[in-house]
Amino acid sequence: MTSGIIPPLITPLKDRDTLDRDGLERLIERLVTGGVHGLFIIGTTGEGPSLSYRLRRELITETCKLVRNRLPVFVGITDTAFVESVNIAKHSADAGATALVAAPPYYLPEGQPELLEYIRHLLPELPLPFYLYNMPSLTKVSFDIDTVRALQDEPKIHGIKDSSGNMVYFHRLCQMLKERPDWSVLMGPEELLLDAVLAGGHGGVNGGANVFPQLYVALYNAAAAGNVQRARQLHALVMHVSSTLYQVGRHSSAIIKGIKCALSHLGVCDDFMAEPFHRFRDQERARIADALAVLQEEITTALA
Amino acid sequence: MTSGIIPPLITPLKDRDTLDRDGLERLIERLVTGGVHGLFIIGTTGEGPSLSYRLRRELITETCKLVRNRLPVFVGITDTAFVESVNIAKHSADAGATALVAAPPYYLPEGQPELLEYIRHLLPELPLPFYLYNMPSLTKVSFDIDTVRALQDEPKIHGIKDSSGNMVYFHRLCQMLKERPDWSVLMGPEELLLDAVLAGGHGGVNGGANVFPQLYVALYNAAAAGNVQRARQLHALVMHVSSTLYQVGRHSSAIIKGIKCALSHLGVCDDFMAEPFHRFRDQERARIADALAVLQEEITTALA
Amino acid sequence: MTSGIIPPLITPLKDRDTLDRDGLERLIERLVTGGVHGLFIIGTTGEGPSLSYRLRRELITETCKLVRNRLPVFVGITDTAFVESVNIAKHSADAGATALVAAPPYYLPEGQPELLEYIRHLLPELPLPFYLYNMPSLTKVSFDIDTVRALQDEPKIHGIKDSSGNMVYFHRLCQMLKERPDWSVLMGPEELLLDAVLAGGHGGVNGGANVFPQLYVALYNAAAAGNVQRARQLHALVMHVSSTLYQVGRHSSAIIKGIKCALSHLGVCDDFMAEPFHRFRDQERARIADALAVLQEEITTALA
Amino acid sequence: MTSGIIPPLITPLKDRDTLDRDGLERLIERLVTGGVHGLFIIGTTGEGPSLSYRLRRELITETCKLVRNRLPVFVGITDTAFVESVNIAKHSADAGATALVAAPPYYLPEGQPELLEYIRHLLPELPLPFYLYNMPSLTKVSFDIDTVRALQDEPKIHGIKDSSGNMVYFHRLCQMLKERPDWSVLMGPEELLLDAVLAGGHGGVNGGANVFPQLYVALYNAAAAGNVQRARQLHALVMHVSSTLYQVGRHSSAIIKGIKCALSHLGVCDDFMAEPFHRFRDQERARIADALAVLQEEITTALA
Repeated sequence: MTSGIIPPLITPLKDRDTLDRDGLERLIERLVTGGVHGLFIIGTTGEGPSLSYRLRRELITETCKLVRNRLPVFVGITDTAFVESVNIAKHSADAGATALVAAPPYYLPEGQPELLEYIRHLLPELPLPFYLYNMPSLTKVSFDIDTVRALQDEPKIHGIKDSSGNMVYFHRLCQMLKERPDWSVLMGPEELLLDAVLAGGHGGVNGGANVFPQLYVALYNAAAAGNVQRARQLHALVMHVSSTLYQVGRHSSAIIKGIKCALSHLGVCDDFMAEPFHRFRDQERARIADALAVLQEEITTALA
Repeated sequence: MTSGIIPPLITPLKDRDTLDRDGLERLIERLVTGGVHGLFIIGTTGEGPSLSYRLRRELITETCKLVRNRLPVFVGITDTAFVESVNIAKHSADAGATALVAAPPYYLPEGQPELLEYIRHLLPELPLPFYLYNMPSLTKVSFDIDTVRALQDEPKIHGIKDSSGNMVYFHRLCQMLKERPDWSVLMGPEELLLDAVLAGGHGGVNGGANVFPQLYVALYNAAAAGNVQRARQLHALVMHVSSTLYQVGRHSSAIIKGIKCALSHLGVCDDFMAEPFHRFRDQERARIADALAVLQEEITTALA
Repeated sequence: MTSGIIPPLITPLKDRDTLDRDGLERLIERLVTGGVHGLFIIGTTGEGPSLSYRLRRELITETCKLVRNRLPVFVGITDTAFVESVNIAKHSADAGATALVAAPPYYLPEGQPELLEYIRHLLPELPLPFYLYNMPSLTKVSFDIDTVRALQDEPKIHGIKDSSGNMVYFHRLCQMLKERPDWSVLMGPEELLLDAVLAGGHGGVNGGANVFPQLYVALYNAAAAGNVQRARQLHALVMHVSSTLYQVGRHSSAIIKGIKCALSHLGVCDDFMAEPFHRFRDQERARIADALAVLQEEITTALA
Repeated sequence: MTSGIIPPLITPLKDRDTLDRDGLERLIERLVTGGVHGLFIIGTTGEGPSLSYRLRRELITETCKLVRNRLPVFVGITDTAFVESVNIAKHSADAGATALVAAPPYYLPEGQPELLEYIRHLLPELPLPFYLYNMPSLTKVSFDIDTVRALQDEPKIHGIKDSSGNMVYFHRLCQMLKERPDWSVLMGPEELLLDAVLAGGHGGVNGGANVFPQLYVALYNAAAAGNVQRARQLHALVMHVSSTLYQVGRHSSAIIKGIKCALSHLGVCDDFMAEPFHRFRDQERARIADALAVLQEEITTALA
């Protein structure tokens, strides 16, 4: 069973179709040192849908090479084209990845019976363990609780990452662990990591862990140990990350831009973003720098 | 200036990654004979996002070959990955297509400034004339009127297809023709073709024209000639297509399934659908057959 | 059968709970002179839900008195409390109103069977003819086509006003006139008045007719006569009203504020608004004055 | 500071405009005995907007009389008409209520500046302490965090009830307690009571506490004491209430219908509902009875 903090890696880019391999190496080393429990590439934070297939394959190969089996590597294969999802899945297995993750195809929204059938068609084609990825704000479709229940008899499924932000839904997932105690139920939005772990969830796939891996690991550990006071204190810092670093931009790209910009300030990697998005300009960069300085001090103090 | 009926072709498939070339040929001949004014491939009705890139390229090549310059061919290059959109655009030019069409990248929603910048980055990479494709229910993002206005100085843009279903928005687009009288403003939902043409729009990209090309052409002609009574009579038949053929399924895939199933009954092509969707089962097939029989009789009478 | 232009009256107010009776009289005379075909009070534009019950009763009584049977008076009885809707309905009959109009109760959204049952319980309590009012953006619930169809056997219902802005839905309503040719199908948003009448609808309940009654009447007449060119020309003016007078404020109250402010500039009535809204401040007032001057000249020229 | 469980009372009715006074008395005694910390009347669960003003006043008077100061009584004054909200507020003070609660006026949605101004106009008219009520799914408008922050300097405001179901928003409210440590931040949806109290919130306004007051009080106590294991166990029972009692109906009225039906089975009061809603029919009643029997046994065991 997977548990703990599995950061959804941003994708370091030199330009629209060029991987920043050195930046990727620095990022991975930072996260390994930071004590995280796995890596998730080619997700939403990784700008997965904006990357060419060639680049996705390169990223998978390089990540697996750089990780050297020190951590499990989860690869996002979400795609609107079934055939391309399977292609990426096979490439991931060849490269040595650990598991695959997919949200529903995200153009024309599926009905639940269609979604169920889709997953049932996909599973036999997959060479690795599989996690469901619930992301209704971007895919338009949720894995309804009854659909998840219908999938509980699939041994190839090992869990679900829920990025709905709907804590009631997350509780319902946790209630289903009676039937599949081996599943992992993981939280996407970091503002709910506290709730997720106190409620019996297994950890988080939280973007902010790209920047501050120790903070998220410490929060996970405190909550998993039932130390409510300590967990609440660390959660307040995560809320502060969220209310500063993610609020500089005005569009839904603001979170990724904020994370990439912070990593650029930290010398980890460039903050180039694939179209249709673009890195922050000078004014926003300065605001991120200011926020980062405050956060670093607060977090260092709290973790001391 | 493009005007008239430009059916968004369904994509005839033999299986998940195999084009039904013979079906495609029969479909194209049917539409040419039916008097349509152009063809649009790899759109929503064409299950574009569900097709592998290999298949998209094959479809472009084959369509251009089969059309033999008898009609303009518009190719959808909508994609979440900029690089892949450009790849398809270049392939389209090489294959002899007429123009390109793109909706906004449809995973993480862009703000309007991001969308504007995206189009401005895309245009220089495109080897053919370009049409905007407004489809907010599926892309989550609309081309706001102010964004369209900002793009009016781009000579490579020749018009816009609006599938928002929002007739007020369509009227606003038509009001903008004062500044760009060479633009084409085309209606997606066929239930609004009457309104669009009476309001000064240039025609429709209507799924039902795959099945009944003459009906849509006749409606376009009547409305363009200001013959309100005749146009209203033909519009009632389009409404009947919509309230029968498109209402058999319960999910948003119902329209495409209905069109493909009808074409299958007509012997044009198979009704295989790419995942995550599937053709109608026997019960739905029978309902489509019944609806088709009624519609054929009504339409034949009206067009006699 | 009701047809033509039935302006949804703004409610002239002196303060939060005081009717501006003189302003109401001037407004009514302006509309009678302008040639409108009826008046609709206590609707959305009339700030109905913001008015105390006492004030609503006073407004009904005064309006009927001032109209002196020169025009039919429609009264909105929409309310979340069944008992209060019936109270207002009875008061309306006593005051001499012509008909009643109700949208669904708008707090907790009803399912369609609940909505159907609600209307069926309401009808026997009503002392006057009744019109359905479809306003899903504000009531959260639409009268689904099947629900309207189920209500077609109710003799007390005389028609429907559709403010959904969904022209496909409006076409579906018009298709139902085969079964109830005596019904009136009326359009709310004035940007769709052209489409509505060309499609066979019976007219409009359009806010802008408070300010420019002649324009809307002329557009209705041209469209009803099948004069597409003339109707399109007048429609362009309505679009101009919409893109100037209604775009000054940023919130959904902008339309009502714009209409009231314009009427205030014209000396018809004060522009006080009941909470939670407030009249425009000086800067917005000036922009409305500028827009009004341009529109008046354009409209005068067009109607000359 | 208010903390603990404050059930939002259902309104026992004999018919559309008649209070079931005996049922109300039994319900209040049940809740007092069950150990709850306050009562909230005329909220969403109390069908507030469906009740005539006369009935609302009677309900306030009777509740205060029956409570005999054993518990604080909170009265919902949410209304689309400012004047009527103030009328109810004054009646509440005269009747001896403790505090007032209001959500935004819920017909035409306000912008945040309009909402802020509305609250600032309302406060001086209120004779009792006041709580904000955030209920965006029904009022269409949220109290944005910045709006709540702007209201923190209002001494008459004592807290906020959040029924958004958005746990991130709730966390943001809790972070604001640094500035107003005397505020109460209360959770609406009972499925999030666990999270709310573990996160530092002050309790819940949970519909299920009408039926099982002891369960919700026990969960509150365990969570407030930091006893995660015990709280999680009781939370599982609340989730079971939610997944059975509230899932019998298909519409948004299902929760209220389920609670009223359960109380009817328990002999507390009739389950009549004000229009536009109606009590469950026999089939649904039987399913509620079955669910109730299972829940009663589980809860009795857990609380033993």
